[in-house]
Amino acid sequence: MEVSLTPQDVYPSRIEAEPQIRGRQDPVIHSTTRPKNGLTTEQAAAFERDGFISIPSLFSPGEVAALTTELDSMANDPLIASKDEAICEPDSGIVRSIFRVHGMSEVFAALARDERIMNIVRHLLDDDTYIHQSRVNMKPGFAGKEFYWHSDFETWHVEDGMPRMRAVSVSIALTENNEFNGPLMLMPGSHLDYIACVGKTPDNHYKQSLRKQEYGVPDRTSLSVLAEKYGIVAPKGPAGSVTIFDCNTMHGSNGNISPWPRSNAFFVYNAISNRVAEPFGGMKPRPEFIAARENIEVLQALPRGSFAQMVS
Amino acid sequence: MEVSLTPQDVYPSRIEAEPQIRGRQDPVIHSTTRPKNGLTTEQAAAFERDGFISIPSLFSPGEVAALTTELDSMANDPLIASKDEAICEPDSGIVRSIFRVHGMSEVFAALARDERIMNIVRHLLDDDTYIHQSRVNMKPGFAGKEFYWHSDFETWHVEDGMPRMRAVSVSIALTENNEFNGPLMLMPGSHLDYIACVGKTPDNHYKQSLRKQEYGVPDRTSLSVLAEKYGIVAPKGPAGSVTIFDCNTMHGSNGNISPWPRSNAFFVYNAISNRVAEPFGGMKPRPEFIAARENIEVLQALPRGSFAQMVS
Repeated sequence: MEVSLTPQDVYPSRIEAEPQIRGRQDPVIHSTTRPKNGLTTEQAAAFERDGFISIPSLFSPGEVAALTTELDSMANDPLIASKDEAICEPDSGIVRSIFRVHGMSEVFAALARDERIMNIVRHLLDDDTYIHQSRVNMKPGFAGKEFYWHSDFETWHVEDGMPRMRAVSVSIALTENNEFNGPLMLMPGSHLDYIACVGKTPDNHYKQSLRKQEYGVPDRTSLSVLAEKYGIVAPKGPAGSVTIFDCNTMHGSNGNISPWPRSNAFFVYNAISNRVAEPFGGMKPRPEFIAARENIEVLQALPRGSFAQMVS
Repeated sequence: MEVSLTPQDVYPSRIEAEPQIRGRQDPVIHSTTRPKNGLTTEQAAAFERDGFISIPSLFSPGEVAALTTELDSMANDPLIASKDEAICEPDSGIVRSIFRVHGMSEVFAALARDERIMNIVRHLLDDDTYIHQSRVNMKPGFAGKEFYWHSDFETWHVEDGMPRMRAVSVSIALTENNEFNGPLMLMPGSHLDYIACVGKTPDNHYKQSLRKQEYGVPDRTSLSVLAEKYGIVAPKGPAGSVTIFDCNTMHGSNGNISPWPRSNAFFVYNAISNRVAEPFGGMKPRPEFIAARENIEVLQALPRGSFAQMVS
């Protein structure tokens, strides 16, 4: 019997001329035991049903202050601004995002390993984990741009070669999230459906949509179906609140003309058994700082508060 | 004693190099008696304090259906699409807004005169009134654009020559407003402050703002001051809900990537004693369909439901 090195593509996308909504082929929570710590039984049930949970004030104001201090220090460091990992505004040069932040800062490296997150991630994925992608985002007030609807997994599968749905995203709010500053919107339950995006232009395309369908973007009909089926929610809360969502949960955010900026730290945990292969879309892999491929380190949990001590 | 035909400019704007927050020079509610009908005492007090009130389901689902039927008919009428009053999408030609709708449609003409609105407007302005501007907006889902913060009065004063703050805007929701589809946001209390916008570039401009200050747009510092002082609210409600706001209340709306479109009818009532003069900014007046100058008709209230009967 021959063993193939390339895993089977169970989530094909960007191939057909018509979009399709397909069923999920993987568990939502990979552990089969009851949650021991980190998650209550109710929280685990909510994650299984909705594809996300939000935990208000998981981190204390003091811990948030430590993270903000570190963030400001990084954003004003010319050495960091010069790296590929730093995404700057074209006009002003102001740093808006820093990728691979767990590799650039000891403080954020410790945050990624904090036992309050790690205990939850371990239960959800039931495996050793590593960081597939990390970043901090500093979205300004007045002119925050929208982020259109997407399933992270579709991108990670097609462009990065992530074989299965065995990864979760963790967003740690560094500012308040309210209904006015463009908070994360999720469709609860959408993690059970997989939207295969269109990959070639269908012959009668102009009849279906007046707007050009973009490559790798969920189509409007499928998004309408999901929104009617599942609705939309946007978790609110003070800085230090955490939202944990499945890799296939449909999400996006509106723009932000409010004066209130929105910053967060974002870590993607992937099961070590789910390491990326060649991109299923056949393209050249994205850079290491966007999708970890070679530099994989299994994470060890650290006791709570470790990162705050580094700054104080 | 010589009488000047040009009213005094008590709200100068777009003149100085620095923005200023100045005090309101006019009453918020011009009647000095208690509200007789239309408004409760509590609603009148809320309007005085906040610069707006929202009345859920002022119009019935049947009335909304009649308005929607008329709106669809107008939006698909090639004759209307060819007029200056119709604002169409550049690519598709789809009608997005129709101005002077009270002059283009008997149904919307009757809506503008509905006694449920007129009784409130009469109390607030304490004068005969006419429509300074009207329009219907059909904002699509998925790609609704934001509308940046502004005081309507600043524009109407500088560009249209409206002398004083004695006008109100009435927005009738033709679709649900929820937190996801880019609803109207207002700063409650901001009607008491008048932001004079910058008009010439200050010498040290680059030190104050990294983003070019736009002409006639409230500056970020003033907006931050107002948001901290007053906060932000966004009325929600089913189709048929109505928001009535003072001409100087600071408002705007975020974009809308949700699948849910947002349509409304919008009427600006001005006191006949407050008719527009020459624009205080010295520019050529805007077209009649954007700011009524010659074709002024004093409005007579119609009994409730008049417009619904026209369609049925």
